[in-house]
Amino acid sequence: MKKAIFSTEINLLRSTMQRLLRRSAHTNITKILRKTHQADVAQIMRNLNQYDQNTIFSLCPTALHKARLLEELDEALIEKVLENESSKTISKIFRYLDTNDQATIISMFSEDKQNEILKIIEVDDKEEVEEIMSYPDDSAGSIMTKETFTLDQNTSVKDSIKKLQSFPENDKIFYLYVLDKKEKLVGVVSLRTLVTSKNSKKLKDIMIKDIQAATTDTDQEEVAKKVAQYNYLALPVVNRQNRFLGIVTIDDVVDIIREEASEDFLQMAGVGKDREILLKSPFENAQSRAPWILASLIGGICAAAIISYFNNLLEQIIVLAAFIPVIIGIGGNVGTQSSTIVVRGLATGRVDVTNTFPLIFKEVIVGSLLGATYGLLVGLASEYITGTSMNNLGLVIGLSIFCSMTIATAVGASVPIILKKLNFDPAISTGPFVTTAIDIIGVALYFLIASTILIN
Amino acid sequence: MKKAIFSTEINLLRSTMQRLLRRSAHTNITKILRKTHQADVAQIMRNLNQYDQNTIFSLCPTALHKARLLEELDEALIEKVLENESSKTISKIFRYLDTNDQATIISMFSEDKQNEILKIIEVDDKEEVEEIMSYPDDSAGSIMTKETFTLDQNTSVKDSIKKLQSFPENDKIFYLYVLDKKEKLVGVVSLRTLVTSKNSKKLKDIMIKDIQAATTDTDQEEVAKKVAQYNYLALPVVNRQNRFLGIVTIDDVVDIIREEASEDFLQMAGVGKDREILLKSPFENAQSRAPWILASLIGGICAAAIISYFNNLLEQIIVLAAFIPVIIGIGGNVGTQSSTIVVRGLATGRVDVTNTFPLIFKEVIVGSLLGATYGLLVGLASEYITGTSMNNLGLVIGLSIFCSMTIATAVGASVPIILKKLNFDPAISTGPFVTTAIDIIGVALYFLIASTILIN
Repeated sequence: MKKAIFSTEINLLRSTMQRLLRRSAHTNITKILRKTHQADVAQIMRNLNQYDQNTIFSLCPTALHKARLLEELDEALIEKVLENESSKTISKIFRYLDTNDQATIISMFSEDKQNEILKIIEVDDKEEVEEIMSYPDDSAGSIMTKETFTLDQNTSVKDSIKKLQSFPENDKIFYLYVLDKKEKLVGVVSLRTLVTSKNSKKLKDIMIKDIQAATTDTDQEEVAKKVAQYNYLALPVVNRQNRFLGIVTIDDVVDIIREEASEDFLQMAGVGKDREILLKSPFENAQSRAPWILASLIGGICAAAIISYFNNLLEQIIVLAAFIPVIIGIGGNVGTQSSTIVVRGLATGRVDVTNTFPLIFKEVIVGSLLGATYGLLVGLASEYITGTSMNNLGLVIGLSIFCSMTIATAVGASVPIILKKLNFDPAISTGPFVTTAIDIIGVALYFLIASTILIN
Repeated sequence: MKKAIFSTEINLLRSTMQRLLRRSAHTNITKILRKTHQADVAQIMRNLNQYDQNTIFSLCPTALHKARLLEELDEALIEKVLENESSKTISKIFRYLDTNDQATIISMFSEDKQNEILKIIEVDDKEEVEEIMSYPDDSAGSIMTKETFTLDQNTSVKDSIKKLQSFPENDKIFYLYVLDKKEKLVGVVSLRTLVTSKNSKKLKDIMIKDIQAATTDTDQEEVAKKVAQYNYLALPVVNRQNRFLGIVTIDDVVDIIREEASEDFLQMAGVGKDREILLKSPFENAQSRAPWILASLIGGICAAAIISYFNNLLEQIIVLAAFIPVIIGIGGNVGTQSSTIVVRGLATGRVDVTNTFPLIFKEVIVGSLLGATYGLLVGLASEYITGTSMNNLGLVIGLSIFCSMTIATAVGASVPIILKKLNFDPAISTGPFVTTAIDIIGVALYFLIASTILIN
């Protein structure tokens, strides 16, 4: 275990590395790479150009070192640094990677290169890698690790400890998985229980039998929720016949939770779901963001059409235009609040999809409370700003704000729930869609109320 | 370990429990409580009214059962179910809680009740609870667990295993922490290493010496980042003199990561940072959301003042009003994208605060790429919608969209970075603040461009 460093020290490492790269001081760079934790190297590589990234990777002293670095690198960088490596070098590095990481990396290549690599990696690994690659993305099967410690239920404690001693070093061994003759999972023994049990006992006497497992097609988010909720260290993965296939460990769950949160953040803002967007070029960036802006564009054009329809009214009462931003802004604001609360509640399991009426109803009450308060405030403020030139203008604006905020909470809370029920990701709804819908509704309401009250 | 159930089965449990509660079938409820995992009970309690929540809590068969349920309950519910319990009952339940949970729960009470409870809990626990309560909120000290397995470095492997056997059962023992005579942390031994080492060896011969620790005042977010980055199972906590005080375990880190993400989601939408907002009344809800809406209200009133200032222009060219929503909507949209990318990058450590110019510059390029595309589109669309009645209107709108999107990306990317540099939470900036700033800038730009181009 290399010493991990504090984030304040990362900056020092980064500037040292950049200076050495400028000077092409390769011997010194290798020296630093030898004594730095690969997680830290991976972090500073994010801010380097591709040439320097390749230099650092090629200066890693051993294939083992390269493997450890690959485990920590962002996917976009893995692709880049391995682009020019021969299949032979890659297979050498792969010897030090667990089969899950091998599968993830191989999937990044073209089919030709995939076959080339699969041909030369070790036979045992090959089967496992192909198995993992056969499971759908983001399923328990695709993220599980096959490197686990399993024994038959009739093994004695003494023999189990002996077998543990000859098992290759692995940080991820927390439990011993107990199987029957047909390789079905029948129990679990913690290392602690193993150590503190009598030597003569058999695993089946000391194991916990009541265990929960995921199947290979369980969604990774579901796996993460389960591990978090029940404080598991690892969740076994079985096939439909309960045959033990591997485990998902808590450190992978930590990554999943962070990644899923990042994806939700980006999706809610309408940036697609590429977690590594910061590493992409401005052009790629604009490409993944453009479609979501289209939503607000179409909404804007609808709003323009609505306002144009009320052209005559606007000509008579030109001051109405001044309050368009506040009415759509305040509605969008409260609608985004509602949808964020609901989206996050769905993601953390706090919102129950089978019983959503009370939730939407509550949001509408919140919307009307806030609408009443701010409707009154802005109504009065508008009377003040525009002088007393226009009767009832304050009433129009106050009432519009009240209605638009109330409707905004209903829309904001409902859209994610409807998406969830239709099996879409609720996160995609909040940003662009909800605000756009509220823009259109807000403008329409405002001019309807104005034409009703003011044109009499 | 009680059997944990799948989320699809939760609904069945919920409806059964509700039916039994309606019938006051208390014996049956207790029977179900006996065989259900407390994490599942905690989840269904969220959707019950307070009376039913109290009933379920009081029907838990033993103090141990109540303790396990408290470990899983949301803080808002803990407060409610313990409200009417006597200090004596509480202290009975506390015997089964680790000192960290005790400290968290005690902090919820009034000072009088705190002192009352502290008086009657066990003396050993009392000191530890008071210690934990003395550390700042959200610090490593306040979240660490004191229930750890520590031994002197001169202990032999054989004696260590013996001591482990007499140590109370605890799921959270992954490592043995090795101390010197002054209780300073000098090393760590994994249970696996312990089991696979020779009996005669001493801990100091087999321990890993190069270990990283947090101090009591390290922020919990920093702790979580470290555990996630280096794949630790637990991080030791020491005081400034390196005296070992406790550990933060990975299952707590999982909770922290989820909670911090939830807080960021809510803050970005301007809903405050109360993760349990779904459990609060509509009135409390409106209260915590109101201040953030004020931002958009003030922004809206500024925009109204700006538009009023251009009253004459608007009177001549009334159609300008129709495009206000699209210009501020599209700017707000792309600005939110930028700020979300930056806020999330800061939270996950992907954005380097010391070198932000390239990031902001890249965002501006993205903004101008998108601005050019959509400026052209909306410019042409506006010519079509309004007919050919007005020369150059398309130019005004296209140019305004280009400028407002470019500036929006600059604002969206800069505000979180500036907040971070000023030591504020960058998440509070995105929702209301950024969109409001962009509303004002967008409207001002639009009318400036219109008055320059159209009034000649």
